[in-house]
Amino acid sequence: MSDFKALLAETADRVTVAMDALLPRATGPESQLISAMRYAALGPGKRLRPFLAIECGRLVGADERGLLRVATAIECIHAYSLIHDDLPCMDDDDMRRGRPTVHKEYDEVTAVLAGDALQTFAFEILADEETTGSPKRRCELIRRLAEASGARGMVGGQMIDMRADRIESDINIITRLQRMKTGALIAYSAESGAILAGAGPDVRRALEGFAHDIGLAFQIRDDLLDAEGKAEETGKAVGKDGDQGKATFVTILGLEGARDRARRLAAQAKDHLEPFGECATLLHQVADYVLERRS
Amino acid sequence: MSDFKALLAETADRVTVAMDALLPRATGPESQLISAMRYAALGPGKRLRPFLAIECGRLVGADERGLLRVATAIECIHAYSLIHDDLPCMDDDDMRRGRPTVHKEYDEVTAVLAGDALQTFAFEILADEETTGSPKRRCELIRRLAEASGARGMVGGQMIDMRADRIESDINIITRLQRMKTGALIAYSAESGAILAGAGPDVRRALEGFAHDIGLAFQIRDDLLDAEGKAEETGKAVGKDGDQGKATFVTILGLEGARDRARRLAAQAKDHLEPFGECATLLHQVADYVLERRS
Repeated sequence: MSDFKALLAETADRVTVAMDALLPRATGPESQLISAMRYAALGPGKRLRPFLAIECGRLVGADERGLLRVATAIECIHAYSLIHDDLPCMDDDDMRRGRPTVHKEYDEVTAVLAGDALQTFAFEILADEETTGSPKRRCELIRRLAEASGARGMVGGQMIDMRADRIESDINIITRLQRMKTGALIAYSAESGAILAGAGPDVRRALEGFAHDIGLAFQIRDDLLDAEGKAEETGKAVGKDGDQGKATFVTILGLEGARDRARRLAAQAKDHLEPFGECATLLHQVADYVLERRS
Repeated sequence: MSDFKALLAETADRVTVAMDALLPRATGPESQLISAMRYAALGPGKRLRPFLAIECGRLVGADERGLLRVATAIECIHAYSLIHDDLPCMDDDDMRRGRPTVHKEYDEVTAVLAGDALQTFAFEILADEETTGSPKRRCELIRRLAEASGARGMVGGQMIDMRADRIESDINIITRLQRMKTGALIAYSAESGAILAGAGPDVRRALEGFAHDIGLAFQIRDDLLDAEGKAEETGKAVGKDGDQGKATFVTILGLEGARDRARRLAAQAKDHLEPFGECATLLHQVADYVLERRS
């Protein structure tokens, strides 16, 4: 597991370097916008989604340079969603990963616009021929990213989450919410490398299935960390969801039930990898990591 | 001019019908998000950008069905930018085109998310093979739209605008601001039809040059309407920019100077159309309309 964590950290560094090179420089009268985009996208983070994109892509022989661009685009979408989720009208969070959130470090106007521009930038990266010489694959990368992150994916999930206190929540609603809010982009991360490599539908489905399951396990682990964690370890306010009376996997399934559900999802995730045999050892470790992570 | 206005209105209707068909239905627990997207994108509006896309595309023989999709994608970007511009932390507008703004009709959370999802949806529309069978052209449509609407285009312009009271504004800054904030998407609208048709760089440059000039003239006319207009005619609060001490073309050039600048830009816009001869009569009328419009 320590080797795995080292590889995760090393990949995170590579993605940050690539992101730094791709993002525009903070010049001109709009420099504050670009500075905020850079603050958000280059800040600390596990970069789990980029890691998934890169490792799943390697598994199917995708081009390394293209993979790094795809991973960067995914991280732009993730960073934009965090900026907007933290806004005063949303979760109203002042801190994120131990640093002031974008609307605290800058202001609310800049936070809204930096999120907007990071979303745009993700599509700009993917549309560029540097990502892959095949325009058909570029279009498929864009189309699927839009599906995963739009109204029927990530943004739709955030909408449900923000209204969760007004909806009679059961395990089905919570599962749907999380599959949309975090699961769709995680699943896309795994699928994207296969799209880049031009892999067939069976391979794409296997990787997507794997990522869907670990995505949900990841969220359950989040809820568990929130319920049992310590503020020092996660770097954000703990017990928030419970305090606000929001339904989570833990409030619905209980601590043991949630742990059990996460374990079963991780096992199921590994089953999806069977066709890849020994080659998928690293992805098995991803499933273990998701289950065991402390932050 | 009345024929032209009728054609503009007719095209607006066609775009609205196409938008209605393309947008997802407001179902599921995320229905409020989709309802707000539809409220914003299907509301009243001149649809000048879609009109430009369609008419410039026709001029170079682009496919009609594809054009309508491109026009719809552009309107999604425009609608998203209006939702976010109206937010309390931005221009804090309660009314838009005679109706409550999205954060007034729904709430702030829904407004941020509906804007986010409309942006995503624009790229989803363009990436789909229904737009054109050529993935290369789809990628070019996406890449250029991202450039026009991102940090170095529309969103960057909005950033400058929001900080305009803190910047020493002169005619160069204001021109740059408007070229980014409104000009870039208007120029893209004109260029997009040519991309869809696979037109050469000369044709694309001519149409883009035309649109850049009328885009700026459009903004000057906006400032003039704001300075001299009546609330009943424009349907939004008048004299706002002046009240807030913001620099506009009118505060910098004066009423007569601004009128003169708009006239010269419209003439210059027409010059760009010379290679098209008689075929561009309708686009000449667009330039006249921009100069004379009352709302």
